[in-house]
Amino acid sequence: MQDVLEMRLLLINGPNLNLLGKREIGIYGKTALETIESSLKDKASSQAIELEFFQSNFEGALVERIHQGMGNIDGILINAGAYTHTSIALRDALLGTNIPYVELHLSNTQSRESFRYDSFLADRAIGVVAGFGPYSYELAMQGLVNYLRTPK
Amino acid sequence: MQDVLEMRLLLINGPNLNLLGKREIGIYGKTALETIESSLKDKASSQAIELEFFQSNFEGALVERIHQGMGNIDGILINAGAYTHTSIALRDALLGTNIPYVELHLSNTQSRESFRYDSFLADRAIGVVAGFGPYSYELAMQGLVNYLRTPK
Amino acid sequence: MQDVLEMRLLLINGPNLNLLGKREIGIYGKTALETIESSLKDKASSQAIELEFFQSNFEGALVERIHQGMGNIDGILINAGAYTHTSIALRDALLGTNIPYVELHLSNTQSRESFRYDSFLADRAIGVVAGFGPYSYELAMQGLVNYLRTPK
Amino acid sequence: MQDVLEMRLLLINGPNLNLLGKREIGIYGKTALETIESSLKDKASSQAIELEFFQSNFEGALVERIHQGMGNIDGILINAGAYTHTSIALRDALLGTNIPYVELHLSNTQSRESFRYDSFLADRAIGVVAGFGPYSYELAMQGLVNYLRTPK
Amino acid sequence: MQDVLEMRLLLINGPNLNLLGKREIGIYGKTALETIESSLKDKASSQAIELEFFQSNFEGALVERIHQGMGNIDGILINAGAYTHTSIALRDALLGTNIPYVELHLSNTQSRESFRYDSFLADRAIGVVAGFGPYSYELAMQGLVNYLRTPK
Amino acid sequence: MQDVLEMRLLLINGPNLNLLGKREIGIYGKTALETIESSLKDKASSQAIELEFFQSNFEGALVERIHQGMGNIDGILINAGAYTHTSIALRDALLGTNIPYVELHLSNTQSRESFRYDSFLADRAIGVVAGFGPYSYELAMQGLVNYLRTPK
Amino acid sequence: MQDVLEMRLLLINGPNLNLLGKREIGIYGKTALETIESSLKDKASSQAIELEFFQSNFEGALVERIHQGMGNIDGILINAGAYTHTSIALRDALLGTNIPYVELHLSNTQSRESFRYDSFLADRAIGVVAGFGPYSYELAMQGLVNYLRTPK
Amino acid sequence: MQDVLEMRLLLINGPNLNLLGKREIGIYGKTALETIESSLKDKASSQAIELEFFQSNFEGALVERIHQGMGNIDGILINAGAYTHTSIALRDALLGTNIPYVELHLSNTQSRESFRYDSFLADRAIGVVAGFGPYSYELAMQGLVNYLRTPK
Amino acid sequence: MQDVLEMRLLLINGPNLNLLGKREIGIYGKTALETIESSLKDKASSQAIELEFFQSNFEGALVERIHQGMGNIDGILINAGAYTHTSIALRDALLGTNIPYVELHLSNTQSRESFRYDSFLADRAIGVVAGFGPYSYELAMQGLVNYLRTPK
Amino acid sequence: MQDVLEMRLLLINGPNLNLLGKREIGIYGKTALETIESSLKDKASSQAIELEFFQSNFEGALVERIHQGMGNIDGILINAGAYTHTSIALRDALLGTNIPYVELHLSNTQSRESFRYDSFLADRAIGVVAGFGPYSYELAMQGLVNYLRTPK
Amino acid sequence: MQDVLEMRLLLINGPNLNLLGKREIGIYGKTALETIESSLKDKASSQAIELEFFQSNFEGALVERIHQGMGNIDGILINAGAYTHTSIALRDALLGTNIPYVELHLSNTQSRESFRYDSFLADRAIGVVAGFGPYSYELAMQGLVNYLRTPK
Amino acid sequence: MQDVLEMRLLLINGPNLNLLGKREIGIYGKTALETIESSLKDKASSQAIELEFFQSNFEGALVERIHQGMGNIDGILINAGAYTHTSIALRDALLGTNIPYVELHLSNTQSRESFRYDSFLADRAIGVVAGFGPYSYELAMQGLVNYLRTPK
Repeated sequence: MQDVLEMRLLLINGPNLNLLGKREIGIYGKTALETIESSLKDKASSQAIELEFFQSNFEGALVERIHQGMGNIDGILINAGAYTHTSIALRDALLGTNIPYVELHLSNTQSRESFRYDSFLADRAIGVVAGFGPYSYELAMQGLVNYLRTPK
Repeated sequence: MQDVLEMRLLLINGPNLNLLGKREIGIYGKTALETIESSLKDKASSQAIELEFFQSNFEGALVERIHQGMGNIDGILINAGAYTHTSIALRDALLGTNIPYVELHLSNTQSRESFRYDSFLADRAIGVVAGFGPYSYELAMQGLVNYLRTPK
Repeated sequence: MQDVLEMRLLLINGPNLNLLGKREIGIYGKTALETIESSLKDKASSQAIELEFFQSNFEGALVERIHQGMGNIDGILINAGAYTHTSIALRDALLGTNIPYVELHLSNTQSRESFRYDSFLADRAIGVVAGFGPYSYELAMQGLVNYLRTPK
Repeated sequence: MQDVLEMRLLLINGPNLNLLGKREIGIYGKTALETIESSLKDKASSQAIELEFFQSNFEGALVERIHQGMGNIDGILINAGAYTHTSIALRDALLGTNIPYVELHLSNTQSRESFRYDSFLADRAIGVVAGFGPYSYELAMQGLVNYLRTPK
Repeated sequence: MQDVLEMRLLLINGPNLNLLGKREIGIYGKTALETIESSLKDKASSQAIELEFFQSNFEGALVERIHQGMGNIDGILINAGAYTHTSIALRDALLGTNIPYVELHLSNTQSRESFRYDSFLADRAIGVVAGFGPYSYELAMQGLVNYLRTPK
Repeated sequence: MQDVLEMRLLLINGPNLNLLGKREIGIYGKTALETIESSLKDKASSQAIELEFFQSNFEGALVERIHQGMGNIDGILINAGAYTHTSIALRDALLGTNIPYVELHLSNTQSRESFRYDSFLADRAIGVVAGFGPYSYELAMQGLVNYLRTPK
Repeated sequence: MQDVLEMRLLLINGPNLNLLGKREIGIYGKTALETIESSLKDKASSQAIELEFFQSNFEGALVERIHQGMGNIDGILINAGAYTHTSIALRDALLGTNIPYVELHLSNTQSRESFRYDSFLADRAIGVVAGFGPYSYELAMQGLVNYLRTPK
Repeated sequence: MQDVLEMRLLLINGPNLNLLGKREIGIYGKTALETIESSLKDKASSQAIELEFFQSNFEGALVERIHQGMGNIDGILINAGAYTHTSIALRDALLGTNIPYVELHLSNTQSRESFRYDSFLADRAIGVVAGFGPYSYELAMQGLVNYLRTPK
Repeated sequence: MQDVLEMRLLLINGPNLNLLGKREIGIYGKTALETIESSLKDKASSQAIELEFFQSNFEGALVERIHQGMGNIDGILINAGAYTHTSIALRDALLGTNIPYVELHLSNTQSRESFRYDSFLADRAIGVVAGFGPYSYELAMQGLVNYLRTPK
Repeated sequence: MQDVLEMRLLLINGPNLNLLGKREIGIYGKTALETIESSLKDKASSQAIELEFFQSNFEGALVERIHQGMGNIDGILINAGAYTHTSIALRDALLGTNIPYVELHLSNTQSRESFRYDSFLADRAIGVVAGFGPYSYELAMQGLVNYLRTPK
Repeated sequence: MQDVLEMRLLLINGPNLNLLGKREIGIYGKTALETIESSLKDKASSQAIELEFFQSNFEGALVERIHQGMGNIDGILINAGAYTHTSIALRDALLGTNIPYVELHLSNTQSRESFRYDSFLADRAIGVVAGFGPYSYELAMQGLVNYLRTPK
Repeated sequence: MQDVLEMRLLLINGPNLNLLGKREIGIYGKTALETIESSLKDKASSQAIELEFFQSNFEGALVERIHQGMGNIDGILINAGAYTHTSIALRDALLGTNIPYVELHLSNTQSRESFRYDSFLADRAIGVVAGFGPYSYELAMQGLVNYLRTPK
């Protein structure tokens, strides 16, 4: 039994991800964001990890939520959606707060439009997980936890 | 006389378009946005079309207004202004909600800075209208209505 | 009743547009060019506008037809088809005769092969209309007429 | 003995190919176009194939000859010469009439100026034959006939 | 002694600049934004200049703050942070309101990632100051004031 | 207890990965390939998955091992190392045998030389995992297994 | 007194040059093509040079006129207008007939749109003259004559 | 009757072509490589041509087989598959041994991914045949034989 | 009163800057270089700073003047004019002598020809000041002095 | 007889042109620079034109010679040799002094290495003459004189 | 007299270099690889250097030979031939084993096809020697030995 | 003993190389240019080679020194420093005088800024040596001597 909180993670979802399960099902699958979040929270809890959520369609709100994580969040899981490819502000927020993060995507961004190949976040991320649908979240969390638990 | 509402359209205006009639008159003309909107609403009403308006300078707000159109809006007229060239999030919102849309511009974007040549919205739009000043709105609405009325 | 000729317009169609209604129906639709032309002429006549037609598959013939418009044509509607993307000669003819023109396309050229993204005509046109099928012609004519009627 | 006409093919030669045997012999060889045509016709006849010829230096004339093939020509052999690299109108004519075609060149276009590397026709052709001099015509015809005879 | 207000300036700071003094100290230095602002205000006051501040992580909020300056602000100092490189909307706001502005950066953007080389604001700015840390603000204000005081 | 073999996977490692634990420890970590393989095999076995291994520094050998998987392998985990960025032959082998595969990397390829950004494999992979060191293998296997177990 | 015909030259003018003196006077000047031609003919005659003229807006017609020069024309002056930048067929005609030629332009093509920088004719021309208005024709003829008179 | 061996040719097939008839049938067709080879050998024998075969998935093996042809092979037919686009070593082997060769492809490489447009072999080949499925082999052999029989 | 020399600076002006006040007044303003220099010297003196001047149109002379600064100059102000964009030798001189420098320009180089966007000096400069006319010199000196006075 | 000095021209030759007649005769011909200069001076004198000469291998010296022409030179003939393609300083000198100039080259720069295609001088020149060997000087002088004599 | 083995070097030759002296003599010279190797071995022996050889046409074999050098080879001389420009695997092998190496070429790669300009090995090599024919080997060995003997 | 002068070489050093041993020691090493020169002269003398030196920071001076070598220098060693990447004038001087030359660099230019990858001299040099510090001079001289002694 684990009764001591080991770490605190933040899951950030960017623009349009509130539509999950409702839009472009061929690309993003049928699972709603809430389902993903609660399922992930359960998996986190069982490992003495606290998992917070934040979704916004506003670049500025995402930036500020990352700022608020400074000093109380050990790692970030981020599916920045479209902002992955256009937001240097998100990059600056992540680098500025110096919180380790994993970039994740539901779909395989390499199979889509060419403007989705470049990421402003990837080169400074711990790692990247993409293409496994909702399961990408679980893999990304495992990868982040494993990283944080590994002695540096 | 038309007494049955045939369709519901949404007119979206992006950043700085609230300044219409006040800024860069050489490029955008002297007509205020409100004037364009009310004139367009009149034309819509006379054809049993309900026309809603939304203007925002926030990318996130535009994304969310499009989301809200899911299930109650038949088509979108969008002048995304500067976001036309920088926002993949808007593209994702339009494609995610699957509402047919027409892209429109007051000015001829091909005559301006080269960074205004590319649009993240155009390739998935029904069509594009640009360069006719405030009259672009009217042409775009006609094009959208014509499309929606055409049996597929 | 309108009994005074207000303006004279010229509709120019470029290569392969004589095939309209016969070729690549998925892209260009089922309406023949003649149908489009006569329908457009009716709409023009009712507004005291004289509308002339010209279609050619020869770049040189299109250039010369534009030359002939000097001094007797008030505005040009041009669907230059493939020559839109390859003919600087057409551009020079339009600029040389100094007749205002609107560029139009049946299909949304942004949704097709990348070599159809660039136009040698667009940056000097009054405006551009694309993607509405045969209805693009009607919208383009309205846009041109509106432009010509607007006091400069 | 074959006494039933099996198929009807059209051989199209583009600009400057009327000079064959007279110009740039180092690149194009010494055989005149007429010699190639009549030799090819003989080979076609012996297989119950009717072969028509057309050469023009006018892009528009080539476009119109292709249009005329609609409904009476089973396949096209095309050596579009310089227009291979500059004419989207020819591409549109070939795709618009939906007649299968083979692209051929006397010389190996990859060994020449870099502006001869790209073809507006190749990606939609059945196949391409280049570099074998006048013999390219024969190989191309065999390839086209083989394609047309293969059950789809 | 100066007792007449000579001009009114607006200092705009973009995304992540609220973190100043807290993040990436190697790049941005240790001084908090508030310290910079109040020190700058003092320098302004002593020259009979009123200086207003605005910081936001929201592109839309920055756009609207600029709009509000129309008619009551004589010049803008803008450190748009990451939006310098991604926001055409900010450019449009600055050009639309027609208020003279100076672009400034704490760090030397030419020494950083290549995506920080391009600015959507620089070509229409009065001038640019970059690389002097918090002192960039002071130099930029001097440059702006000097410009505004120079008879045109 | 699981006593029925559910699926058979193949783990392929490309050039230089036999050096794991011996070379560039700063980038690739200290764990030897054999350690990774046996640890992964244990995890697989416990889920009734048979896991085969293959490492080669020869592009041709990797191609042929993939061929041999046709008909007896349900999915492939591939860390193609340097061949990720240079081998179209590997891509063709994977697509030709039609076996689902996951691309994985020890390091975050986006943080390294620019010629490591492009992958000839990624766009047709189920998904991609990169940056988690040896743990990337485990995440990739989970992702692959999850994909294969999901009803299509 | 010169009474023996020394050489025969051909002056070719491409598309839109029939408009000379009528169009875009700011760029091309006020002199009509006929005036240029007859003035040039006079200068040629006085040197025992026969000068022929040809102007066409048809690429194919220009190609064929060059073909006809084979064997009876010693040198070509060519102002190919817009076809300078788009016609490989003209290049092939000039190289195929192997007649020495000088490329000339009324305006300085380097001062205009960037698509006028590249010429398909220049690299194989004897030389190039551009920017001197109608006087370019005279300079080009002198240059050509000087070249032809120089023993090789 | 031909009873004297006239020439000796080598047919080289590159990576993955051993899968022919088994993989990606939509692109490559249903005929196995062995079938193509034996059918081609029959055609060669009937013309007193000896035809040798070699297929390998190893770039090095292909290079060495070409070396072995020095002095005993009159011409090479090469379908280098994926190595067409990535192997300068193959190019060097072909140029180094100085054996004339024809490049061939089953599919039309211009209709596929853009990285298949460039060939390291084509510019020095006699010619290229692509797109006719297994029949490409026959056409290529004819082209090669015709070339070798033509007096230089 | 300051009576101790605190630092020694060198102001370097590159090609054509000797024309200041005489050439292209629209771009560079009306103040002569000598005026700028003496005004700047006054400002320097009042802060116990010795300021030396050097202007040359010779790249080599500029390089050598920088060399001479080694060991006796604390910082350099450099307006390298056209050499900013073409001289790697200047860059090497500045880096080789290891003297801190500030890059400055009279005009806003981002508003001019695109070949003035890149600087061989900027990425290693302390900072950059551009666009303020002669006042750029004063701002640059302040920035340099502030940098040198700041404890590292 | 002309006895009044009409205009004063300056002929500038850039680097390596002092080698004329001694180097790369295949490209530049056999005539020495002195021969060209004196022949040109004769032609100028006969038209009451004073012609001065300057050749230097130093970019700075060329810049300064142009400066010295301010106020006493009516037009410049410039063969800047290699500096044509690398010197923005020369461009600035020519624009700064505002003296009309003609760019000339002995060889046809379009037929040589690709780095000789671009000129920093051409777009602001009156015109360009290239490819006629030493005769280019004469044509360029005629063009310049004609320009200066034409009433603006 | 030197009787103590000072260092052990490995000379690696890539694809097609076994053909040396037999192929493309104009480019590579007449000396066979064996001659180069034995001559180099003599020179090495006289300096108490042991020199091993390895040539392969297989990328994988080259990679493995480098691996085997780990711990027993002090430096590598590598003429990777065509793999210089295509093999990231070789780069990884060299960097992975951390053995200092010198890149060498017989011919001057800058004088050949443009795809030979880039090297995947050069930026991490000690140095590069190219263009001296077989003598490049000797120079490269001297350079390597000099490097290894220099105290770091 | 050698008492007959066999050849005369010229060693040219470009901009900033007079700083050798004084600047950027991490990149260029600690040896002064004079030390390199005298050491090299000794080696030359012992082989009956006369070696002259020239260093300048002036592009024009380097050009002229090369000119002076015409007819009395057998070969040139050139370390053009920064001018390697910017000076076409140096290239023209070297090609114009037709003296064989070797390009050399102290540092490995491929490991530095990307603007140091291209050389205007390399493609026409005998060969290139880079990266061996001062020893590059010795290797380059050996390579040049070897080349000059080899019968052509």
